[in-house]
Order: sequence, then C-alpha cells, then structure tokens
Amino acid sequence: MTRYVLHVEYDGTAYAGFQLQADQPTVQGRLEEAAEALYKQAVRMHASGRTDAGVHAEHQIVHFDPPSELRNLNLKAAMNTVLPPDIRVMDTAVTDETFHARFSARERRYRYDISTGVTALDRHRVWQIFQDLDLKRMQACAELIVGEHDFTSFCSLQAEVDHKRCLIRRSAWERKGDRLSYHVHGNRFLHSMVRSLVGTMVEAGKHRLDEKDFLSILEQRDRLAGAVTAPPQGLFLVDVLYDSPIPWEKEP
Amino acid sequence: MTRYVLHVEYDGTAYAGFQLQADQPTVQGRLEEAAEALYKQAVRMHASGRTDAGVHAEHQIVHFDPPSELRNLNLKAAMNTVLPPDIRVMDTAVTDETFHARFSARERRYRYDISTGVTALDRHRVWQIFQDLDLKRMQACAELIVGEHDFTSFCSLQAEVDHKRCLIRRSAWERKGDRLSYHVHGNRFLHSMVRSLVGTMVEAGKHRLDEKDFLSILEQRDRLAGAVTAPPQGLFLVDVLYDSPIPWEKEP
Repeated sequence: MTRYVLHVEYDGTAYAGFQLQADQPTVQGRLEEAAEALYKQAVRMHASGRTDAGVHAEHQIVHFDPPSELRNLNLKAAMNTVLPPDIRVMDTAVTDETFHARFSARERRYRYDISTGVTALDRHRVWQIFQDLDLKRMQACAELIVGEHDFTSFCSLQAEVDHKRCLIRRSAWERKGDRLSYHVHGNRFLHSMVRSLVGTMVEAGKHRLDEKDFLSILEQRDRLAGAVTAPPQGLFLVDVLYDSPIPWEKEP
Repeated sequence: MTRYVLHVEYDGTAYAGFQLQADQPTVQGRLEEAAEALYKQAVRMHASGRTDAGVHAEHQIVHFDPPSELRNLNLKAAMNTVLPPDIRVMDTAVTDETFHARFSARERRYRYDISTGVTALDRHRVWQIFQDLDLKRMQACAELIVGEHDFTSFCSLQAEVDHKRCLIRRSAWERKGDRLSYHVHGNRFLHSMVRSLVGTMVEAGKHRLDEKDFLSILEQRDRLAGAVTAPPQGLFLVDVLYDSPIPWEKEP
C-alpha cells in the first residue's frame, strides 16, 4: 500500500492547534481539506504529534494513505496550491504502511525562543520578557530533567495517557544577543510539557525559584506542585527523528 | 526646545504604509495616536522617510516635539504600552531642533529578501520565487547603479520630487542557503525605487533581461522603459545614518 509522508511547516498563530476540532481552524483540518480538494474524497492525516494553539512547526511530519492514484501528481506543488500560505508542504516521500508518522517516531525536538529585548517583527515567534534572567540557574534546572523522568508535574491535567514517563536526551539553554533559546529532545512529550518546563525555568531565571524548588516540583509528580506555563508563540517543533530516514523526493 | 527621537521597528503587513492617510491604518497614524494618548494633545511625527504598504522597518527614525513636559516619563515603556504590538519603540533619545529625522539623514539602508524555497513562517518577510535565479547576472546589474544616477526609470510616476538623482554607495546581492538578500545604501530613495530595482534585477536573474537591457532601462530615464516592481513584503528599512550619532538613552 502506498503511504505518502509530508514534511510540513506552519505558522500556528491563526490556528487552534494541529488537531482537528469542530468549528475551529486547525492545521489538520486545513491539510485534510487540501487533500480532499485533490482526491475528491475524504483523507485522514496522521501527524507525529499534536501542537497547541499558537505553536509553530518548522518540521512536522504527517502521513496519509491516498484514496486513489492520481497520475502525474506533483504532490508538493499541488498541496501548496490549495493550502493557505501559513501552512506549506516542504517535502514529500512515498513509503508504505510500515511507516507511521506518530508510532514510528523515536525522537521529537522542540525549541522555545525568548527575547529579552522588545520586538515588533518577531512578536508571534518569541516570548518577550523585559527582565534580567539568570541563565545559569535556568541551565541548572534544564540539566535536571535529562534522562527518564515522570513529568506529571509538567503536564496538563487534560492529558489522557497511560503513563507520564519521558526520556529526555537533550535539555539546554543557549544565548545569542537578546535571544534565549531552549532546546529539548526526547522520545515523547506530554500535553503542554515544553511550555510548562520553560515557564517554570523562567521563574527560576527570575529568582522566584531555585534548582531545589524545580527538582521538588518534578519529584512531586503533581500538576499542582507549582509549574508555570509559558505562552505558546515561542514554541517550535523543529524535528522528528525516525529509525529509518524518510526517503524524501528530490526536487525536479 | 526639546525634541524626542525614536528608533521604531514595525511589521508593515497590516498597514497602508508609514505615511498618514485618511481611513487607512498607517504606522504614522498609530504613533501619533499613541503620543496623543500620553500628552492629551495632538502630536505630529516626522520620519526619515516613508515606507510603502506591507514594507517593514527594523530601524525607522522618527522625531516629535513634545507639547508638554511629562515628569518621570519612561517614553519607550509608555509608548509601547499604548502602541499595537506590531509597532515597537526600540530606543529613545533627547535632542533639539537642530536634528530632523528626514533632513538630517545622510544615508538610508534597505534590505530586500527573496526565498527560493517554500516558507510558511516567513511568508510576510520574503518574496518566494520557485525558480533558479542567476545571481551573477543580478549582481552585475546591482553594480551598475553604484554612484550618482537619475532613477526616473525605477521610480513610481506618483513621486513628486524636484529631481530624481540618488547617490548609491552600496548595491550588492548575498546568498545564504535558499535566501537571497539585496543590500542597498544611498543618500536618498524615490518612491518604490528599491522594489523596482529588485523586480528588474529578478527579471535579469530569470534571463528575461541581461545587464545591457538593465543599463538601457536606467539610461532611458523613463518609468515606461520596462522596470518591474517587486512585491512589498521582502523589503526592510534597516538603518538610517546621520552626521552626528543619535545620543540614545541607556536602558535603566
């Protein structure tokens, strides 16, 4: 069976998140409408994972099973013709049913950007914080989550999952001028987890918490332990890794 | 007399340009409304120059004469509280009437960004061209305009100025991955001049023109000689230089 894989970039500003919702604009909804316009049949899209309202993706992976064969289809160009300009198909690949955008993924990578300076042009891409942040303390907190941990304290109460353990392979802050970027790589992420980690580390950066408090929040495994959620616009899904590399089509 | 100078950054996407217009949102209009909210009196803003609808500024310089003294005013913070988030005051300075944002400026610097790859996140910041561009030929054209020239051929017919000579000090293309950036520095720029230069150089990059045709368009001094205008969203005013450096306030 033919299965198509899409590398999708989107600006999440205008959307109520990735996942389909009735009466709300979603990225999944727009992708399914675009495919339906091509195939004249309903098409279900499957992503590596959801992103929340206002969260962006430089590299979301989506798959779907085409309901029919369309001859001479340049899928990337065809999808981009029908998609709105804030959602773009960047690359396409042909695989089979052994590949699943969500279940075959072994690592997700996110970046969260903060600006400590004022910005108009990047207002939908950063969390603007006009206050000195103690990056050393934020980095000390970041390092505490590397390895396998239960992230109940940093996970929205709505999350319906069988367990809340995640294996974090990288968790680090980086400064470039007035931009602070948090990079986090892990096997899986729970609902609003990256934003809760960032918001709580920023509390540490403002000296409202220290590393011990941060560790205590983690160890309590309780959403009410004191984690603070950062706003969505600074968050980007930047990569999804699979066991076998996806065989992207070469540009013509 | 006290004169305030503002370094303003704006995202031009939502505006009908810098200059005040009746019944259209403009950057000048928003700045004057913000100052009026602070001073409870009409305030006239003067910029280094206009920018067209959809054009951005990383570094626009604006001055105004405060109609009264407000004690303990943090002008930057106060303006940013009342301005919309797509217009930000980045820095402020106090000068006197010997400084004029437009007449004291000796150089304006613009950048125009093109993406030869697809992009969702940067769709309001680049001209997306999905075609190979001959950058060498574009660069050869860019070099032809360095020095003093009459730019009638690259200037909107609406421009009401006494002469159309401009002294260009830098005119060069640069490539970084799938981004092409055009940098142009000059003593003055006419209405839609940078966009006309870029649009016409892109025609050369597509092999629809060569350097001789480009030079011929320049030398005809005729708007109808064949110049093509690029769309506004790739254009940024990136700097304005003055004879004496502006004495920016230090952040508290």
